[in-house]
Amino acid sequence: MTTRPPADVGTPVEEIDTPALVVDLDAYERNLDRMAASLAGLPVRLRPHAKTHKCPVVAHHQLARGAVGVCCQKVSEAEAMVQGGVRSVLLSNEIVGRRKIARLVGLAREADVAVCVDDAENVRELGEAARAAGVELRVLVEVNVGANRCGVEPGEPAAALAARVATTPGLRFAGLQAYQGRAQHIREPARRREAIEAAVAAVRATLDRLRAGGLRCEVVSGAGTGTYEMEAASGVYTELQAGSYVFMDADYKRVEGPPAAFENALFVLATVMSRAVAERAVVDAGLKALAVDSGMPVVAGRPDLEFTRASDEHGVLALSDPGTELRPGARLWLVPGHCDPTINLYDWYVCVRNGRVEALWPITARGAVL
Amino acid sequence: MTTRPPADVGTPVEEIDTPALVVDLDAYERNLDRMAASLAGLPVRLRPHAKTHKCPVVAHHQLARGAVGVCCQKVSEAEAMVQGGVRSVLLSNEIVGRRKIARLVGLAREADVAVCVDDAENVRELGEAARAAGVELRVLVEVNVGANRCGVEPGEPAAALAARVATTPGLRFAGLQAYQGRAQHIREPARRREAIEAAVAAVRATLDRLRAGGLRCEVVSGAGTGTYEMEAASGVYTELQAGSYVFMDADYKRVEGPPAAFENALFVLATVMSRAVAERAVVDAGLKALAVDSGMPVVAGRPDLEFTRASDEHGVLALSDPGTELRPGARLWLVPGHCDPTINLYDWYVCVRNGRVEALWPITARGAVL
Repeated sequence: MTTRPPADVGTPVEEIDTPALVVDLDAYERNLDRMAASLAGLPVRLRPHAKTHKCPVVAHHQLARGAVGVCCQKVSEAEAMVQGGVRSVLLSNEIVGRRKIARLVGLAREADVAVCVDDAENVRELGEAARAAGVELRVLVEVNVGANRCGVEPGEPAAALAARVATTPGLRFAGLQAYQGRAQHIREPARRREAIEAAVAAVRATLDRLRAGGLRCEVVSGAGTGTYEMEAASGVYTELQAGSYVFMDADYKRVEGPPAAFENALFVLATVMSRAVAERAVVDAGLKALAVDSGMPVVAGRPDLEFTRASDEHGVLALSDPGTELRPGARLWLVPGHCDPTINLYDWYVCVRNGRVEALWPITARGAVL
Repeated sequence: MTTRPPADVGTPVEEIDTPALVVDLDAYERNLDRMAASLAGLPVRLRPHAKTHKCPVVAHHQLARGAVGVCCQKVSEAEAMVQGGVRSVLLSNEIVGRRKIARLVGLAREADVAVCVDDAENVRELGEAARAAGVELRVLVEVNVGANRCGVEPGEPAAALAARVATTPGLRFAGLQAYQGRAQHIREPARRREAIEAAVAAVRATLDRLRAGGLRCEVVSGAGTGTYEMEAASGVYTELQAGSYVFMDADYKRVEGPPAAFENALFVLATVMSRAVAERAVVDAGLKALAVDSGMPVVAGRPDLEFTRASDEHGVLALSDPGTELRPGARLWLVPGHCDPTINLYDWYVCVRNGRVEALWPITARGAVL
């Protein structure tokens, strides 16, 4: 059930089978370097989110440039990272249920593992499992800083849960998870700033209550590619979770301001399979090759072609000039609307440089939802 | 890179790890039987689309109830079906490019394989490859009957391409592909009927031209779950490609009329992982567990819960009554908005009956986009 790779190392780019998930290695490395340079000298660490790339190879490139570990959303994703040699993982998510918690504490035997909580009963279960496994599990209290997803409310509710963690044998209170996910894709920098200022205020209020309760907060973790410079400069965040910056996508490229400095390094290479009429062409990449939750892909370098709709295995392109030569077999580079769920559709990154495939990286945590 | 299954055979339903793709075997078998019964005595054959299920086990259940083979969209999908013992496959799609065409004619050595065309140069390439492989490839001309995707226009353009197929050594003109995909999800039966009547008229006009040119048309293939009874009664269609009927989904259940007789047999079983505030709960199934291209999932049996948004690994539910008891660990059965791309996210069907897992079926063609 692992699909064959669409190319071999050394294959010329023109011969990569399609649809294929292609990484432009030069652009990718510039993105990695750009992020490292933008954080140099700041009192924050980068812990990039592995839910974007799902690939230990990419994680090691990030670690080599100063990242202190990775974030994961699922235990199975974390297992793939630890098995791939990553030594420090933050589960930036609540882990619920006996089976998953048992795997989580098992993983904590092999690596530095931290997890988030927003529920007292879950704290009790984690403590019980940690003691049974003979590990001390690091726990962050997730605070709702405006994303309105998981997380207890800032201030007293967060401090109360932190106190409960701190007094649960087997657990160590490690800090706060304070991710403002809804701010990341706000187009206008001023509105994005407002959202992050509110998040920072919520974190400060919580830190005050923790201090009043005598609790030390080592870590405040949050931020994504859209806002990370604001959290980095906030004075309260200590770890940044940005992930999309390595590859970018069509939706993130619509975000104005500093995030625009990162380049599109990820493409779905597609082939025209039909041009039966002048006004449209159809490519071999649809819903099973491209996530469309954040909009349709953009055809790189071809503003004359609009990707208008996707069905399972078809992408329909409207041509602004019906006279355009675009025959079956023509190849187009699509920038996915949303990188994370697009990557999760593939087993292989096809990594290209100078017109050839330089590497194939397995997407080890593809489908790792458990 | 194949994920572990979320349960074993014999596991009680309450212990299936989540998110999991679960088949209600009783409902599934009723859907299979219902389709077979609805076509009994009609002069049409069922060739269900395997892009829905991507699983030879399901294909064999369909064949056992009278299906004459399956449809596939991709060569790699067809390979998975033939390797799983299916003896007749229609590639209901154009296959473009040297590598793919070589695999297609290779497959035609092992099974009855047909393919669609809408381009003269593609016909030439298919003929060349078929002769090189020493096979005779059956070819259907795809006609645009209103879906405005692939396909030549009906009437003369279709007949001209059919004549070209018929005169190309290595190829045999087998009929017409005439799928009105855009009609399937039209809610109102009357408007759905209009669309199919227009498709039938387009097919008739094409058949007239074929006859005038002395070409025999064995097969007219088309139809989906939303309209198949209309194509079945049309007098021109000979094969029906419906696929979703085996599982159904939230979007198809919004289609009024006969398709509503099929039951939801496919669910994403999810667990509440956060209930930090009264007005919302968060489940562990998001964009990587559920395709949202046709809308958000519906929570089965819980009209009081609305699945309002999905991020990578989170689904946010709004509670109509904030007083509802819904704690972390509670399990919910989600009906995906669109079955096909949801199934493509998983490696395993967890098949349940009488409260236990009865079988695990591998989704062999998951990710088969090449």
